[in-house]
Amino acid sequence: MSSFLGSDAALATDLYELTMAAAYFDNDEKADASFELFVRRFPKNRSYLVAAGLEQAVEYLTNLHFSKEHVEFLRKHPSFKNVSKSFFEYLLDLKFTGDVWAMPEGTVFFINEPIIRVTAPIVQAQIVETYLLSVMNFETLIATKAARVVQSAKGRGIVEFGSRRAHGPEAGLLASRASYIGGCIGTSNTLAGYLFGIPTYGTMAHSFIMSYDSEEDAFKRFCKVFPNNPSFLIDTYDTVQGAKKAVSMNVAPSLVRLDSGDRYELSVKVRKILDDAGFKNTRVFVSGDLNEYIIQDLMSRDAPIDTFGVGTELATSRDDPALSGIYKLVSLERNGKTIYRVKTSTDKRTIPGVKQIYRTYSESGEIQEDLLALQDEESPPNAERLMTQVFNHGSRISEPVEISRIQERGRRQVASLPLKYKALEGSEESPVRLSPKLQKLANSLWASHGEVD
Amino acid sequence: MSSFLGSDAALATDLYELTMAAAYFDNDEKADASFELFVRRFPKNRSYLVAAGLEQAVEYLTNLHFSKEHVEFLRKHPSFKNVSKSFFEYLLDLKFTGDVWAMPEGTVFFINEPIIRVTAPIVQAQIVETYLLSVMNFETLIATKAARVVQSAKGRGIVEFGSRRAHGPEAGLLASRASYIGGCIGTSNTLAGYLFGIPTYGTMAHSFIMSYDSEEDAFKRFCKVFPNNPSFLIDTYDTVQGAKKAVSMNVAPSLVRLDSGDRYELSVKVRKILDDAGFKNTRVFVSGDLNEYIIQDLMSRDAPIDTFGVGTELATSRDDPALSGIYKLVSLERNGKTIYRVKTSTDKRTIPGVKQIYRTYSESGEIQEDLLALQDEESPPNAERLMTQVFNHGSRISEPVEISRIQERGRRQVASLPLKYKALEGSEESPVRLSPKLQKLANSLWASHGEVD
Repeated sequence: MSSFLGSDAALATDLYELTMAAAYFDNDEKADASFELFVRRFPKNRSYLVAAGLEQAVEYLTNLHFSKEHVEFLRKHPSFKNVSKSFFEYLLDLKFTGDVWAMPEGTVFFINEPIIRVTAPIVQAQIVETYLLSVMNFETLIATKAARVVQSAKGRGIVEFGSRRAHGPEAGLLASRASYIGGCIGTSNTLAGYLFGIPTYGTMAHSFIMSYDSEEDAFKRFCKVFPNNPSFLIDTYDTVQGAKKAVSMNVAPSLVRLDSGDRYELSVKVRKILDDAGFKNTRVFVSGDLNEYIIQDLMSRDAPIDTFGVGTELATSRDDPALSGIYKLVSLERNGKTIYRVKTSTDKRTIPGVKQIYRTYSESGEIQEDLLALQDEESPPNAERLMTQVFNHGSRISEPVEISRIQERGRRQVASLPLKYKALEGSEESPVRLSPKLQKLANSLWASHGEVD
Repeated sequence: MSSFLGSDAALATDLYELTMAAAYFDNDEKADASFELFVRRFPKNRSYLVAAGLEQAVEYLTNLHFSKEHVEFLRKHPSFKNVSKSFFEYLLDLKFTGDVWAMPEGTVFFINEPIIRVTAPIVQAQIVETYLLSVMNFETLIATKAARVVQSAKGRGIVEFGSRRAHGPEAGLLASRASYIGGCIGTSNTLAGYLFGIPTYGTMAHSFIMSYDSEEDAFKRFCKVFPNNPSFLIDTYDTVQGAKKAVSMNVAPSLVRLDSGDRYELSVKVRKILDDAGFKNTRVFVSGDLNEYIIQDLMSRDAPIDTFGVGTELATSRDDPALSGIYKLVSLERNGKTIYRVKTSTDKRTIPGVKQIYRTYSESGEIQEDLLALQDEESPPNAERLMTQVFNHGSRISEPVEISRIQERGRRQVASLPLKYKALEGSEESPVRLSPKLQKLANSLWASHGEVD
């Protein structure tokens, strides 16, 4: 599959990535650089994250290419006036030739833990920053939000519904993918079904009901085309009346959907109407401005709801719509020597060096500790290595993973979280510890303001 | 230009649009339907909106097409088991043949005012709902946020910086476009420069500084490639020291950027260092988690800042990241008769009929009133008609507008807003009034629960 934004993906980068690339190139900078992408702060009320977006990052790196028109655009850009001709020739031939290590999608992770590392000639490693951040920040944000919503529903299904309020058509599609990784049972986005094999759901909107002279007439016409267990939207005019009409159709509806009003009260009334009519298997599907807090409340009151449709709040992670993932230089290989790097700006200190994460579990299978260590340190006993290699010298060496297997990994990972991290209000605690060697290295670089190698 | 998601755009729709389309088709439903897209509630603290996204909607409608593979996917989908073969043949040949009226991009508008209307055979008008909502909701959300940020800066330039935190690469690109419409002077997104002709800005990141052994060394190497008025990022290690190094480079920097710490205090110190070195023309550029509230505060304290880079908060509209735009059936033409439609669900009542908005201005050029009327009502004297025709029987009849002209329209529109609507905390007031004829029609339909025509 090609990258999003198709053949224009390479130019979907901040201009400064390209001015820096030119500066490196024209300074004849040959270093290989290692950049790690990690999250600096949790979004509101979160104390774990679910990694997602790697497959889109991989597709982008695989297809990375500047067209003649792109290069011509840059050549004429006033910022590039003094840049050498060789740089533009280099860009035309550019392919990604680096190594990549990453966490598998669906992995639960915490602050300061890298989810992807790129080691490549510094020009390449720099140019890919913006695109990698945008896909991995967004999909991780939404997979995490979905995991919270799914948790709140205690086993009832969640269908992702948010394309119309997502940040453009591509965001809707990626939100569907990430929501499925986070545990949703499916999506309303048809393209997500077509491209990713995610189950797609949908029946009718209010406009269908409104296009006929009565609700009964609309229901009847829908039954004609969808005769096997049709679904009915029952709140266009009056939910209780709508439910009564739905049970009078001489067919067992598979579900009825309500999208407005007091969801608790109405679900109770509608359930009773269905039961009294003998439709015990008809599911009550509820939608309309739902989120994990509202669903938790409905579940705590035993609302007779079988499935939830969650749109805007999920596809935009509305309560905190941005993940502060950053992509930072951690080391350079220059003239055969490893040089560690940190940033020491106020509140923005980074941890140096190419890292591995060693995760250990308790006997009951709960996450006990994540040891953040330099990659060449010895593994603690029985630890799982979270970072695995994805690219070797520009060639992908990992197979794409089926979306259902990614979802299954996500489910198991969230299940292995100690309860405190799963509370909707989050936790102050963190299972991440720096290895003594890494801590010592970081301390010494922070003390020297990062400028000594 | 092609649509976003390229040849897959047609399938970027909620499945229920397609099940409803099948139900209409197999019921031999020939009605032409009119749907209007409008906003039900303002985002937090907003009391006006800036229309954007029309050009992307138009490109989508122009290119609308289902491939054989798309249709095959639907044919095999369990939901479509009983749908007629003719429906799939119809989909394969589908082109948009309808009429479209819309507000020009950059127009200021309010709650309940349509920004686009589609009149087409009901199957078509239904299928396009999801994509139109996603581009127009998102770009309008961001153009509005940008207008607020631009207002807060009282004439200092705002550069949009948010691609890395936007909801995927396409969202970053669309956010750049919408931010420019809302008044930003440019963007960091290179592709937005290439595709839309928006000015692009960018110099260096912390990684460039960190890749060399000292800040001075990094600055020198950058100057070698960008010798004419280079820009320096000065906060990688210590902002004040960074500023001192920047003025020691034997070149007049065009700007210095600070991205962390106390922006007020540091901008004062940095300005003094620049002035003492004789660099009166060097601009102070500030970035890092800025928004309209922080900028308003900095400006109220006369912080010596020339330009602001605004990223995450702008590209995600972080304080309220979703626009509640909806696309509702307002009337049908069936057998030569106009049938008005409303929805009467709790808190979700809609206004029937195909509408025009007549805007009148005070003598000083301020927006006085928007009269929301049925399209065939007479215009008040000296009123501006906000809805203009874009498609006629499937053919685009409006020319694409240059982005600089859209921005200019946005600027004039925001300038014509009475002050109360422009306050950062918003206003409870609204200049929108329903015409007596429209009010009467709505009242009668609401009273009849919408089911009588």
